[in-house]
Amino acid sequence: MESPAGRAPTPGALPYYVAFSQLLGLTVVAVTGAWLGVYRGGIAWESALQFNVHPLCMIIGLVFLQGDALLVYRVFRNEAKRTTKVLHGVLHVFAFVIALVGLVAVFDYHRKKGSADLYSLHSWCGILVFVLFLAQWLVGFSFFLFPGASFSLRSRYRPQHVFFGAAIFLLSVGTALLGLKEALLFQLGTKYSAFEPEGVLANVLGLLLVAFCAVVLYILTRADWKRPLQAEEQALSMDFKTLTEGDSPSSQ
Amino acid sequence: MESPAGRAPTPGALPYYVAFSQLLGLTVVAVTGAWLGVYRGGIAWESALQFNVHPLCMIIGLVFLQGDALLVYRVFRNEAKRTTKVLHGVLHVFAFVIALVGLVAVFDYHRKKGSADLYSLHSWCGILVFVLFLAQWLVGFSFFLFPGASFSLRSRYRPQHVFFGAAIFLLSVGTALLGLKEALLFQLGTKYSAFEPEGVLANVLGLLLVAFCAVVLYILTRADWKRPLQAEEQALSMDFKTLTEGDSPSSQ
Repeated sequence: MESPAGRAPTPGALPYYVAFSQLLGLTVVAVTGAWLGVYRGGIAWESALQFNVHPLCMIIGLVFLQGDALLVYRVFRNEAKRTTKVLHGVLHVFAFVIALVGLVAVFDYHRKKGSADLYSLHSWCGILVFVLFLAQWLVGFSFFLFPGASFSLRSRYRPQHVFFGAAIFLLSVGTALLGLKEALLFQLGTKYSAFEPEGVLANVLGLLLVAFCAVVLYILTRADWKRPLQAEEQALSMDFKTLTEGDSPSSQ
Repeated sequence: MESPAGRAPTPGALPYYVAFSQLLGLTVVAVTGAWLGVYRGGIAWESALQFNVHPLCMIIGLVFLQGDALLVYRVFRNEAKRTTKVLHGVLHVFAFVIALVGLVAVFDYHRKKGSADLYSLHSWCGILVFVLFLAQWLVGFSFFLFPGASFSLRSRYRPQHVFFGAAIFLLSVGTALLGLKEALLFQLGTKYSAFEPEGVLANVLGLLLVAFCAVVLYILTRADWKRPLQAEEQALSMDFKTLTEGDSPSSQ
C-alpha cells in the first residue's frame, strides 16, 4: 500500500469507479431537480416554493459535494498533500454553505406558514448532521491545516477523522432518505400505495442515493486504493519542525 | 496489527465499546417493544396486531443480531478461526430466520387487509437487503466455510465480503429508519408535529438505532482492533492443501 517516493501508478479500476460515482451523484442531483420541477412546481425563494430549496440544497451540499470532498484523496493521488487537504476543506465549506441555504429555506418556510419546527426524526437527524459536520470541520482544520498540531497528534487523530467523516456522510444520506419519505407521505398520502408516478420516481431517487453512498464508501474503504505516501509529505505534514517527535506517517 | 502466534492481548478499550454496543442494541430492542406495547396494542399473529410482528422481528434480526454477527471477529480474538467463522455464519442464519418471520408477517397482514405490497421506498430497500443478505451469506459460505476455495481466492474475496457485510448492515438500519418514519406518519399524521409522546419516543428510537449502528461500525473499522492472526489459522484456512498457492493471509 505504501509506495516509494515519486509518482505512484493509479490503480487500474479506480478511475472507472470514480467516474461511476460522479455519474450517480449527478443523476441524483438531476432526478431531485426533475422531481421538484415536474411534481412540486419548481423552485423560488419568495413563495410557497421556498420549501423546495431545502431538498435541492441538501442533496447538492450534504450528499454530492460532501461525497466528492471525501474522494479527493483517492482522485488526487500525486498532488502535494497540502493542496489536496485544502481542496478537501474547501469542498466541505461549499457543502456547508449550500446546506445552510437549504436549512434557512425550510425554517423560513415553516415560519411563514406557522408550522412547527424540529419535531420529526428527519429534523433531529439533520440537526445532528449539522452539529457533527461543523465540529468535524473545525477539529479537522485545527489539526491538519492550522500549523501547530504535532505530527504524532495528527497521526493519532487521522483515523478518527476518517471514521467520523464517513459516518457524517452516511448520516447525511440517511437523513435525506427520511426527508424524501416524509415529503412523499405528506404529499401523496394513500395515493403512494397506488404506484403514483411521483412515488415511483422518488423511490428510484432513494435507490440512487443509496447507490451513490455505496460507491463512495467502496472507493474510500478499499485498502489498496488509499493515497500513497508522497516524498515531500513527511516534511510538509510536520511543518518542518516536529520531525523527530512522531513515528512514521500512515497514508491518508 | 499482525501479532505473533499465541494469545494476543485484547486492546484495552475494546471491551468497553463492545459492552456499550450491546447496551445500545438491547435498548433498541426494548424501546421497540415498549413502543409497540404502549402505543400499538402489543403483538399477536392472528389479529390486526400481526403487523407489529414485522418491526420487532426486523429490529431483532436485521439490526441487533446482524450487528452482533459482524462483531464476532472482534470479540472472539483468540478462539480458533473456524469456530468464530461458524458462529458468524450461524448468527446470520438466526438473523435471517427471524427477519423472514417479520417479512411473512407484513405480507400476510397486507393480504388479509387487502393493502398493496412493495410500493414504498422502505419496502424496496427491504427487498434489496434480503436479496443482498442471502447472496452474501451463500457466497461467504462457499468461500469461507465450504472446503474448496483456494487460499488466494479467499484472500482476494475477503475485503469484498467485509465491505458488503457492513454495507448490508447499514442498509438494514437505514431501511428500519424509513419503516419507523412510515409507521409514524401513517398513524400520527399531523399530530406528529404536535410532539405527541409516541412521536418523541419513536424519534428517540431512531437516534438509538443510529447510535448502535455507529458504535458497531466504529468497532469494526478500527484498524488496531482487527483480529490478530492465530498460529493455527494458516493451516486451518487452507484446509491443509493449498499451502503453497497463495500469499500470506491478512487478518480478518
